[in-house]
Amino acid sequence: MTVPEKLVSLREQLSNSNLDAWIVPSADPHQSEYVADRWKGRTWISGFTGSAGTVVITKDKAGLWTDSRYFVQAASELKDSGITLMKEGLPETLSIEDWLKQELPEGAAIGFDGAVMSITQVKALEEKLQSKHIELESKTDLLNAIWQDRPQMPVNPIILLGDEIAGESRTSKIKRIRDKMATSNAKHCILTGLDDIAWTLNIRGKDVEYNPVAYSWVVISESSTHLFIDSNKLSDEIKNKLIQDNISIHDYADFFLFLAGLEEARVLIDPDKTSQKIRDAINSACTIIEKPSIPFDLKAIKNETELKGIRDAHIRDGAAMVKWLFWLEQNIANGPHTEVTLAEKLEEFRKAGEHYQGPSFSTIAGYNGNGAIVHYEAEAETAATVKPEGMLLLDSGGQYLDGTTDITRTISLGTPTEKQKHCYTLVLKGHIDLAKAVFPKGYNGSQVDTFSRAAIWADFMNYGHGTGHGVGHFLNVHEGPQRIRPENSVPLEIGMLTSNEPGLYFEGEFGIRIENLVITKMLKRNEFGTFYGFETVTLCPIDKSLIDKEMMTKDEIEWLNNYHLQVYKALSPLLTESETMWLKDKTLAI
Amino acid sequence: MTVPEKLVSLREQLSNSNLDAWIVPSADPHQSEYVADRWKGRTWISGFTGSAGTVVITKDKAGLWTDSRYFVQAASELKDSGITLMKEGLPETLSIEDWLKQELPEGAAIGFDGAVMSITQVKALEEKLQSKHIELESKTDLLNAIWQDRPQMPVNPIILLGDEIAGESRTSKIKRIRDKMATSNAKHCILTGLDDIAWTLNIRGKDVEYNPVAYSWVVISESSTHLFIDSNKLSDEIKNKLIQDNISIHDYADFFLFLAGLEEARVLIDPDKTSQKIRDAINSACTIIEKPSIPFDLKAIKNETELKGIRDAHIRDGAAMVKWLFWLEQNIANGPHTEVTLAEKLEEFRKAGEHYQGPSFSTIAGYNGNGAIVHYEAEAETAATVKPEGMLLLDSGGQYLDGTTDITRTISLGTPTEKQKHCYTLVLKGHIDLAKAVFPKGYNGSQVDTFSRAAIWADFMNYGHGTGHGVGHFLNVHEGPQRIRPENSVPLEIGMLTSNEPGLYFEGEFGIRIENLVITKMLKRNEFGTFYGFETVTLCPIDKSLIDKEMMTKDEIEWLNNYHLQVYKALSPLLTESETMWLKDKTLAI
Repeated sequence: MTVPEKLVSLREQLSNSNLDAWIVPSADPHQSEYVADRWKGRTWISGFTGSAGTVVITKDKAGLWTDSRYFVQAASELKDSGITLMKEGLPETLSIEDWLKQELPEGAAIGFDGAVMSITQVKALEEKLQSKHIELESKTDLLNAIWQDRPQMPVNPIILLGDEIAGESRTSKIKRIRDKMATSNAKHCILTGLDDIAWTLNIRGKDVEYNPVAYSWVVISESSTHLFIDSNKLSDEIKNKLIQDNISIHDYADFFLFLAGLEEARVLIDPDKTSQKIRDAINSACTIIEKPSIPFDLKAIKNETELKGIRDAHIRDGAAMVKWLFWLEQNIANGPHTEVTLAEKLEEFRKAGEHYQGPSFSTIAGYNGNGAIVHYEAEAETAATVKPEGMLLLDSGGQYLDGTTDITRTISLGTPTEKQKHCYTLVLKGHIDLAKAVFPKGYNGSQVDTFSRAAIWADFMNYGHGTGHGVGHFLNVHEGPQRIRPENSVPLEIGMLTSNEPGLYFEGEFGIRIENLVITKMLKRNEFGTFYGFETVTLCPIDKSLIDKEMMTKDEIEWLNNYHLQVYKALSPLLTESETMWLKDKTLAI
Repeated sequence: MTVPEKLVSLREQLSNSNLDAWIVPSADPHQSEYVADRWKGRTWISGFTGSAGTVVITKDKAGLWTDSRYFVQAASELKDSGITLMKEGLPETLSIEDWLKQELPEGAAIGFDGAVMSITQVKALEEKLQSKHIELESKTDLLNAIWQDRPQMPVNPIILLGDEIAGESRTSKIKRIRDKMATSNAKHCILTGLDDIAWTLNIRGKDVEYNPVAYSWVVISESSTHLFIDSNKLSDEIKNKLIQDNISIHDYADFFLFLAGLEEARVLIDPDKTSQKIRDAINSACTIIEKPSIPFDLKAIKNETELKGIRDAHIRDGAAMVKWLFWLEQNIANGPHTEVTLAEKLEEFRKAGEHYQGPSFSTIAGYNGNGAIVHYEAEAETAATVKPEGMLLLDSGGQYLDGTTDITRTISLGTPTEKQKHCYTLVLKGHIDLAKAVFPKGYNGSQVDTFSRAAIWADFMNYGHGTGHGVGHFLNVHEGPQRIRPENSVPLEIGMLTSNEPGLYFEGEFGIRIENLVITKMLKRNEFGTFYGFETVTLCPIDKSLIDKEMMTKDEIEWLNNYHLQVYKALSPLLTESETMWLKDKTLAI
């Protein structure tokens, strides 16, 4: 079926359902960042393969909204599709709501798959369409009828994490969630976020690329816990262990029946993570309380066992990075190498390490100008050939049984220019100034963000992305609630794991980003207050050939030399003799 | 009348009015920071003379709530008064609301002078008392009946500022206010803040200590402007000029009649600055729109003429400071000097300068341990004797026809200790790091505050006050909306005048604060964005004998040396030869 044929079929469904338009977002029933193939309907109907975008189809028009990183790709993939590219962020581009208000008559009806749009999203759309009395109708996905070979739900086995890895039993976590439920007088708490569920039950899955989660739902009640999951994912042993922990196991699909059968009570849901379909399915006798998901906040603060695992995983991950950097230096002249083959080589080194489960996200390997494209993803056919000259930015990470990693290094493959050294050193100063920052308890990512930007601002430059995101423990590489960025009001708490990744980007020339993960830790309590700071857990040398030492303060140089000493000590036991010699040189004090 | 006798009289009034309690705040009908004697009813009824405090009187009890800086003074002044000191900020102290809920029966009635409590304050109180069904009743001040010699309204002549000082005519300002009113579809805008009124009409008064304002009200309508003021404050010439600018002049007291007579329309008021009495007086046919006062935001951004005046005033103010510092060095050994006599001497030097109108606030002169009391105010009887040893913190400012100043210097009068030098240098680093900060357009005082604290936090210290407040142009020394402090979300805009005053305080030992005023200015616009920074306008040497140069970065030293060069160049034309020689030495590069 071609895209135009698919649009014809969908429009037949539209008129059968008495609808004037249909919305296809890039989402699954759990509001996941990465979704299984079954929920890649937006790609299926439009042919656009980028990670972000929404298609809207009316009786005679269709549009795809996506952001600037995909303008070129989307224009090419949408050619002759009958779908117009709507470039988000440009002043002349109508928003989806404004476009719908322009295209549809007063009182029109718009449909969407209620299973994949959150309460918050639906509410926002409704409010904006109200002025033209346009109705939103939550439906079963119209694609079901026309997407013949739609992939099934993934059915991959789950594993349980023992307390020696998770550091806290599921029983203890459920108790803590119930304690929080009690403060809202809630009898039931519905968990929909796959990482919230994985953390709560100490389970990990393989249903989604990069994120070690399993499609499932959970309802925690005052005295019972209900897991809704395809039982083919559970071995008998795992089933027994869950049952021993008083967890009732139901089929994934029975979740909606269960919601309909809830007795009258107060029910906690997170409107950002809960679909309209779930909201509508809950017995109407219940009182709905909308609050952020309880495990969302709890899991951000890692316990001692998790922190130990995270530190251990970073030693193995750092060793893989060093082996790759050493191999690269030895082999860069004996090409051909491309952005893709180099990334594959790194994956080989990671695979050889203990507990490795796969990448934690799609590697960004950007050579020269490609390094300046913040979300660049090289494709085998079009990847740049990497030569012993210029600069390479590599942002990658691994999932290990005991932790998740996310590291960016920018390296020079030849003789760096003055501009490259100057800008690299600015980014490094920003990175170090945040890594060694001291700040009072209660401060948030917005206030702390200034540390990483001050040196860069002083040269009248800036970067357009956040400085840091939360990272899970063998879980999603992006998690909340804390972030380090100009607008975030969640205080940084002891035990939170966050990235520290300032950068600078020069279109068509090169990009620089230096990323380590950091744990918030207590530094001191005295008569002036309680002071926090960061422990850097990522271990990998920072390219000294790109540093202009003159630009650095004494304290910054001291931090770098101490960091490099720590890198050498921690990684050398995992390296060959020649790798160790190489690392010794790369970590010598400047 | 003794305080106990006053309480008896007030309780008679209470029962005549069928009330169970009465609240006496420290406020005037304009929510001013400093109030005329007529509104010092809280001092009159309690005998407590501190600047902040609220008295609450029930049929059998009375309490005074005030903050830690007044605990000692209040305890002494309240002795045998029958009023209990309620120490705000201590965990064991009940809030006013909780105390009232404890003391009063269900359904009780509390009265207050509706002329001096803002809509916001009344609403907050009401919400907190609701759970016990306690009613708040806005009344005419009960003190009127018992305060026999209550001072009259002040009647001091006002002056008009010409455009050569104000930089913008009142006609132009009123037009800009009307443009903003139009965006809210408002027909009338009620101005109650005395500095908002002074700025709008380019008038200045002498009704309040330190703040050059005149008690008055203004209503700006679509095509008319109404000033309510005691006409004895206006010369015929001034009256004529205002009338020529289409401003109708009414008596101060007729304001409430005018509000009652407003035709049906949309009326803009600022709930933080508007009293309950005003709210209640507005014709009920009107639609009230609550928004921050329009001139509050407009006046924060100074025009070029105001900025020139501010720079000029700071040259004269800096010269007075230098003359005083020189005199002090020559005379400190020939005492006796006290905190009070030294402050008086400085005032003499200021008075000798052109355009001087008086102090912009009550001078804080804190010797040694007194310097650690943030809001210390020396009294002649108890002031410390200042000797040629130890440290003196002096925070003072002047009102000049062309600008308002606010400066703090901390100086060593003997041989500083290592601790004093170390801590002084930390504060200086914070001061300089903010003074030379570069930040993107759109950033606010919360994000920028980190610049001034980073060096201090790094040594695990902190200060408990904000880093900066807005300052008026020959107007109030404290104004908004911008502040530099951990929680403020107002972006810093070009032309705003703000203080930069980090500090460190060691109880019983010494206090350090270094304060200059800074103007937000444009630094650069390029492909990365628009970058702002600060121009420092305060000119006075920073005590080099307290600096540990080893602790400072190259950039910080460069800033200091450049600043001192600028101080020398700007001030020396106003100094005697010996003062100039002295200043040359004090501003030599380190």
